[in-house]
Amino acid sequence: MFVITIGREYGSGGRFIARKLAQELNIPFYDNELLAKASQESGISPTVFANYDEKKEGFFSGIIPNGLGFDLSLGQKVFLAQFETIKKLALSQSCVIVGRCADYVLRENKNVINVFITASIEDCIARAVKYYNVPEAKAKDIVTKMNKNRAAYYNFYSDRKWGRADTYDLCVNSSIGIDETVDVIKKYVETRLNNQK
Amino acid sequence: MFVITIGREYGSGGRFIARKLAQELNIPFYDNELLAKASQESGISPTVFANYDEKKEGFFSGIIPNGLGFDLSLGQKVFLAQFETIKKLALSQSCVIVGRCADYVLRENKNVINVFITASIEDCIARAVKYYNVPEAKAKDIVTKMNKNRAAYYNFYSDRKWGRADTYDLCVNSSIGIDETVDVIKKYVETRLNNQK
Repeated sequence: MFVITIGREYGSGGRFIARKLAQELNIPFYDNELLAKASQESGISPTVFANYDEKKEGFFSGIIPNGLGFDLSLGQKVFLAQFETIKKLALSQSCVIVGRCADYVLRENKNVINVFITASIEDCIARAVKYYNVPEAKAKDIVTKMNKNRAAYYNFYSDRKWGRADTYDLCVNSSIGIDETVDVIKKYVETRLNNQK
Repeated sequence: MFVITIGREYGSGGRFIARKLAQELNIPFYDNELLAKASQESGISPTVFANYDEKKEGFFSGIIPNGLGFDLSLGQKVFLAQFETIKKLALSQSCVIVGRCADYVLRENKNVINVFITASIEDCIARAVKYYNVPEAKAKDIVTKMNKNRAAYYNFYSDRKWGRADTYDLCVNSSIGIDETVDVIKKYVETRLNNQK
């Protein structure tokens, strides 16, 4: 059993790569699917999950006085619910998980392969416009902003740095193509799993 | 014709990986060899090259008043001599070049593949002790210090960030093994070169 986690720059095609990789390895794949699952398991509403997904709250929203002392913020509750869901998934099956600090959540597990996907800024912009309905004139700013959100979220909840090579086992620039990137990741995964035999 | 540049954490095995990769692709490989070549071509002594290799000078040493105005420091002259040698190499042959901001120097060339090698801190320490005669008790500090030197040098002379995934085409954690890392890089190189046909 093994888990592949995929961190990714916004617009780098990480979701497409993760889905294709999962298909080819014949294992399940979780991106937004994880939110629905964590929402179900925790009882927190899907809307709340969507609102807090991979976004870090402001400094003060993390500390909520509730009369008895301090309570967790909604953002922290969402993180913890995802955390529990990711841990359960990793215990029960091989799978591919996109984002959500999964690599950090699973840091004690040995059979976890952590991948990060980048792409040229031109490719990220083109994908944001094509798939996420981002207006072309604002696309570069939105790509930058989304990456900042992801980095802030990751760096807040983990003790590693988002997007640094030493955080991951393998980082690939997907501008060689989605299928080609999947091939390179598969080569790494096969090599790693053969090693462990 | 293509050039593969290899950036690397200290003790990650980058030199070994680069040499093996070059052997398997049957192309030349330049690490310290580059210093000798640049020294010959520039007339600056090899000792000076060794002293300034991938180390950034202090802030004020970059500005030397010489009576007529300001001159380049020795560190900058060494960088420029390496810069010229790397450019010449890339025009005349396929090769593998280790470190020395080669990816940045060759940023306008299309057929350049930029790779970065990391490894677990335990592996980096073990390699530093075994191959570079670093005393075990000081190894962790020396690994950290050497990486800081390399990052400062790279970040000073380039407009990118050393060790960030988005600086490179491919980053591999070599703790899967030297030969295995070479195999993964070869897979990326083949995919990329096939793409360009």
